[in-house]
Parts: sequence; C-alpha cells; structure tokens
Amino acid sequence: MNTSYRFLVQLEQVRAKSPLVHNITNYVVMNNTANALLAIGASPVMAHSTVEVEEMAGIAGSLVINIGTLSPEWVKAMLLAGKKASQRGIPVVLDPVGAGATTYRTQTCLEIIAQCKPTIIRGNASEIMALVDATNKTKGVDSIAASDAALASAQQLARETKAVVVISGPTDYITDGTRVAKVHNGSTLMTRVTGLGCTATAVLGAFAAVNPNAFEAAIDGMACMGVAGETAAQTAKGPGSMQSLFLDSLYQLSQTTLQVTPSIEE
Amino acid sequence: MNTSYRFLVQLEQVRAKSPLVHNITNYVVMNNTANALLAIGASPVMAHSTVEVEEMAGIAGSLVINIGTLSPEWVKAMLLAGKKASQRGIPVVLDPVGAGATTYRTQTCLEIIAQCKPTIIRGNASEIMALVDATNKTKGVDSIAASDAALASAQQLARETKAVVVISGPTDYITDGTRVAKVHNGSTLMTRVTGLGCTATAVLGAFAAVNPNAFEAAIDGMACMGVAGETAAQTAKGPGSMQSLFLDSLYQLSQTTLQVTPSIEE
Amino acid sequence: MNTSYRFLVQLEQVRAKSPLVHNITNYVVMNNTANALLAIGASPVMAHSTVEVEEMAGIAGSLVINIGTLSPEWVKAMLLAGKKASQRGIPVVLDPVGAGATTYRTQTCLEIIAQCKPTIIRGNASEIMALVDATNKTKGVDSIAASDAALASAQQLARETKAVVVISGPTDYITDGTRVAKVHNGSTLMTRVTGLGCTATAVLGAFAAVNPNAFEAAIDGMACMGVAGETAAQTAKGPGSMQSLFLDSLYQLSQTTLQVTPSIEE
Repeated sequence: MNTSYRFLVQLEQVRAKSPLVHNITNYVVMNNTANALLAIGASPVMAHSTVEVEEMAGIAGSLVINIGTLSPEWVKAMLLAGKKASQRGIPVVLDPVGAGATTYRTQTCLEIIAQCKPTIIRGNASEIMALVDATNKTKGVDSIAASDAALASAQQLARETKAVVVISGPTDYITDGTRVAKVHNGSTLMTRVTGLGCTATAVLGAFAAVNPNAFEAAIDGMACMGVAGETAAQTAKGPGSMQSLFLDSLYQLSQTTLQVTPSIEE
Repeated sequence: MNTSYRFLVQLEQVRAKSPLVHNITNYVVMNNTANALLAIGASPVMAHSTVEVEEMAGIAGSLVINIGTLSPEWVKAMLLAGKKASQRGIPVVLDPVGAGATTYRTQTCLEIIAQCKPTIIRGNASEIMALVDATNKTKGVDSIAASDAALASAQQLARETKAVVVISGPTDYITDGTRVAKVHNGSTLMTRVTGLGCTATAVLGAFAAVNPNAFEAAIDGMACMGVAGETAAQTAKGPGSMQSLFLDSLYQLSQTTLQVTPSIEE
Repeated sequence: MNTSYRFLVQLEQVRAKSPLVHNITNYVVMNNTANALLAIGASPVMAHSTVEVEEMAGIAGSLVINIGTLSPEWVKAMLLAGKKASQRGIPVVLDPVGAGATTYRTQTCLEIIAQCKPTIIRGNASEIMALVDATNKTKGVDSIAASDAALASAQQLARETKAVVVISGPTDYITDGTRVAKVHNGSTLMTRVTGLGCTATAVLGAFAAVNPNAFEAAIDGMACMGVAGETAAQTAKGPGSMQSLFLDSLYQLSQTTLQVTPSIEE
C-alpha cells in the first residue's frame, strides 16, 4: 500500500492548526524540542511547576512527558499533568529516557504509564525493553539492543498499555500491539546530535494533537523526522551543522521541496 | 527626527563597558540569551539560588527576570534579587512569559512588578494585555493580539508601574506611558526560533545597564534585535540557520557592516 | 619533546571505548556539553536527582561536576555522586564556575574538593585563584586574571588537592603541582560562545575516562578543544557559526583531517 505522503498531509494539518503542545521535558533538550515544534508549525509551551501544570494541560492540544532529567518534584508535576490530559482525552506522549539505566527511571515510567495512560510511548530499544522487563540493564541513555527481541517487547508493551509504542533506530518500528509499521529514513549522524530522540517524541505530540488515529500519527511523525534528518545529513559536515540543517529541513518540508524518497512500510 | 543610528552608538557602549547582566531566566533560552549577551559584548551570568541571588545582583550592572519556566523556589529568588537590584538602583527588566496562559504566571508577574519595580517590561501583545486585565486569556506563550488595544494596555501599564513597556511584534512598540516609539525592523522568521523574545529582554538588560535613560535603552535594544534579525533573515534558509546567523549578525553589527536600513520612529 | 599528536591517539581511544560520562552540570550548557561529548564519540548522561545520582555514578566511566547554576538540592547530589565516584576510583572532574563571584560558589567548591577529591579541576584564572584565596573577587563567570599569579595559585591548588589543575585562557596551563604543560591553540572567538569552558571540562571527563594518567588526559583534552576551536574559527563569521563549526571540527578531528598545527609544550 502507498502511504508514503500521508505524513506531508498531516504536517500541513500541524501547520494549519498550530496545536499547543505542553512539554514537561528535560533540561538538555528543551531548546531543541521547542525549536523543532516551531519549525513544523506547532506552538510549544514548557511548564513544569505543580502549581500550574494542570491549568496548562487544560488548554493544551497534547502533552509530552520526557523524564530525561527527572527529580521528585518534576515527577509529581508529570503525574498531575498526565492525569489531567488523560481525563480531557488529549494525547499523552511519553519518552522514557534512560529507563533501565537506574531503578528510579524505570519505576517512574511505570508509574506514569499506570496513572496517565499514554497514547504513544517512544524510546530506543533498550528503554522499551526495560519497561517490559525491569531487569533489563541499559548503559546510559543511548543504548541500542537487538531488534527482534526489542520489537517483541514493544508489541507486548503496546498490548499491555494500549499505547502505540515506537522504537527509534536505524529503522523505526511503530506498533499498536498487532500491526507493525516501519520507517527506514534517517541518518546515523542523527545519533551524534543530542536530543533528536526527544525531539521525535515532541514531534509525535504535535502529530497526535491533529490526528485522533495515534498509530498513524506515530508513523507520520517518525516519517517526518526521518525524512528531515536524511535531507539534512546530505549536506551536514558534522553534528553542529546537522543540528541547524535539521531544523531548516523540518521547516521547509513539503511535497514540492522533498529531496528524499520516503521509505515507509505500513 | 533622525535617531536611526543611536542604537549603534549604544551598542559600542555595551562592548566597551561589558556590563555584568544577571539573568534569572527560563531553562529553554538560557543558552541563547547568554550567547546573545556575549555576542553584543556584555557579560552574562545565570544564578537562581536564593542562597546567592542577592549577592550576585549586588555586583551586577542590571538584572533580567524571565518567568518562562517558573516554580515557587525560583519565584522567591526572583523577588529577592529584584528587590536587591531595585534598592541598588540598577535596572530590572521583566519578561512576563505566558502571562495570561495560567493564573500562576499572571499573579507572579504582578507580584514581581509590585515588589521589584521593573525599569522595563517586555512581552508580546497578549502578555502585556494580561498584566493590565487579568481576565485576558492567552494561548500558550506565542500569542499575538490586536495592536491598538495592546498599545493602550502598554501605555496604561507604563503609567501605573512607571516602567517602560515594550510590545514585541511585526512592529515593536516602546512606551513610557506618554511617548510611543516604534521599531519596524525584523523578520517573521524570528517567530520560528524559540526564545528570541526572551533574548530581546536580555539584550534590553545590557542596553539599560549602560544608559540611564530607560526609554532610549529599550528603543535601542529593540532596534539592535530587529536589525540583526532582519540581516540574518536575508540569508537564512530556515529557523536552524536563522539561529546561528542571528548571533553572527549581532556580533558583527556596526556602522560599517550595516546591511539593513534601520526603521525607527521616535 | 614531541607530544603533539598524542591527543589524537587518545581521541581515538574515546571513540573506540565510548565511555559513559555522567554530568551534573549547569542548565546553560547541558545541550552544548552533551553535543560535544557525542561529537568526540563519548556517551553523555545527565542525571542530578539525589534519588539516582549514586546509581548513575556507579555505572559511569567518569563524573563531571559543574556548579554553574548551583542550588542546595543540586549540591547535595554533586556530593553524593562525587563521593561514590571517588570510592569507585573513576575520575571526577570539577568546574568551579563563578568561584569568587559569590561566597556560596567558593564555599561549595571547597566542600566538593574536600569530600569528592577531584582528579582534575578546570577553571579560568579568576576561579582557580578564588579557590586558593577565598578573598579573591571575581566579576561574574568570565574573568581573566594575570597569568603568573594564576599559575602559582594553580600549582598550589594542585599540590594541596592532589588534582591536576587546568587554567583556560589564550594559553591553557595544566599542572600537577610540579610539572606545567601549555596548550597554545584556540581562538578569541571561543570566549564569545557560552559554555566552551564548561565543554572543555566535559571533554576532560571523557579523556580521563580512557587514560589513567590524569595529567596527560588534561593536556590531551585541552589540546583537542584548542585545535578544534582554532579550526572552527578559520571559517566562522561570528559566535553563531562558531558554535556549529566547533562541533563539526570536534567530530572530524583526526590525523588526516588536521588543519591546524598543534602547539603543545609539555
């Protein structure tokens, strides 16, 4: 089936509706993810205080929770905002950064999943596996594990949580527990820029805000990331120029400017 | 009257005196604003702990308070530093990020205004309106409202607070409650780079540190931002390259390198 | 003696072993330092909660502590992680950002030194002097003091703490209290990009993780920074392009791509 260009149609929806994406994310990537959301036409807001997160989640089109630099006060806010978003029926996207690296990270993710019922969970293979089997150990936040076992974990996690689960990697896997879609676009240079995984999660937040079909939104968001990244890598000379070119690519992305062949299996 | 080049003279003052600008600002833009201050020759310092903010404000040339990612402990520090700065008679510049989006943001700004008596307040139209009429609702942090009502609000806020009030937008308005100056330079691409509003506020902090005339300092700082932004936009291919080019423009800005016609009404 | 190319050999070690570098650092530079570590092939992780820092330091190859935006809760975490790292015998690298600017900064550094026994301490001249003589006053975080007195302070600090001490500046000085090495590479444009000092500290963390000789690791890390910076400055048009080009240079750095003559005295 040919679904190759749906992500561009959905990207136009993001640009047209400019959804407010409420991010409770980590310090490292706040700037990048805000810029990526602006580049695709969404309207990012960062707010993390327990005093205001419910009110902010109350006016947002989607909520992105990223535990990259978690601490107890921030986790409280994530749970408050996540429950509010869940009650309102807006999409909640979770990035379990470093799950498996420390017990605190794994346990916090499980608590967020239980209480906030995320619509989409996006991580690398190690992180997703750690959420299914809490004995799986991750090295830091960048680990990649074998893809067959990882995909099985992703499917199990999707079935158990009713979330769409995304594993980022050379090939991105997107599953709702039954169906499995793949996005082959991207570049290894993306792994040398900090926070492009977190950026993917934020972008999924924007796509989910304009498309009630979370499985499609996850595929389209990852396709958007992959195609923009692959385009940027064609002229990048290293991770510094990659970071700038990636935002430019996201901003310019459209049917007429497409420089890369989308490679999406659905 | 021709005041077109005063901002370049004042920029040279910033470069010559390299004022220490103490920032209590949000996580998203700390890097950008520090870089912008370095690019114009100022000396930025970020410090937010209640343990040290008074001592830091005690040696600074100006204080910039930005509530973008506020929380109770940070607000305490803002108030402590702001009162210290106010007592010392150094300029305090306030950025009411997201005022109107949540009650917490609006109320915090009003408390900072009451206790710290800011010299300059810079926001977008929605934020400034929210400070005058707390029932005005903002969508997130990027909203733009109609300019006539906004300008009236800015003038009212300036009269009530004795601060110079700046509304950023396609045209920037600067008012002391009576006089209204306008800066027409800039580029719509600036709205697609996160934190350029916050950067403007930080730049105003540097200009106010070297010029006791706050109305002039606000005009000159906004002119500097607008001209640098417009210059950068001439070669930018999107928000990624814009961000780099903007800092380069700020750094290079001088009478001999000017590539854009300043358009300032005073 | 000719030690000019050892830093490239050690850089290959970093790329081959990809050490996990645990950073407890400041908000301003988290993104930059993570990107620099990725650019040289290391694996950065940021974690600062007292709940997890000991577990994270327990799996890391080195620990970088940077007090740039310190607060009491973060200082607790720095001490916990630093003691754990010290017990495990992995390198601890300290960046005393703004020591001398406030009493809190100076005292916190002295406490970290006493409890965590850093392997390497890197600062600018003012900061290093403030650690030796707590009455020395710094202006903000960017001060440069006279080099003879600074070098004497660095040597004294090295002898008293048994750490290798590095003073960054136009010439970088590296001392173990007896020997003094110098790195002459670099560019003044590096002082106009925020956080390149903090980035140097993080890079030292990676080099120390793969080389048990801390004196060599400090020299090699600073050489790597200086050569990459000097290379980037050859084509940079200002601090914006400098920031991108610097990461590209770090990423590309190798014997075959070397565009700058290393100038290292050991």
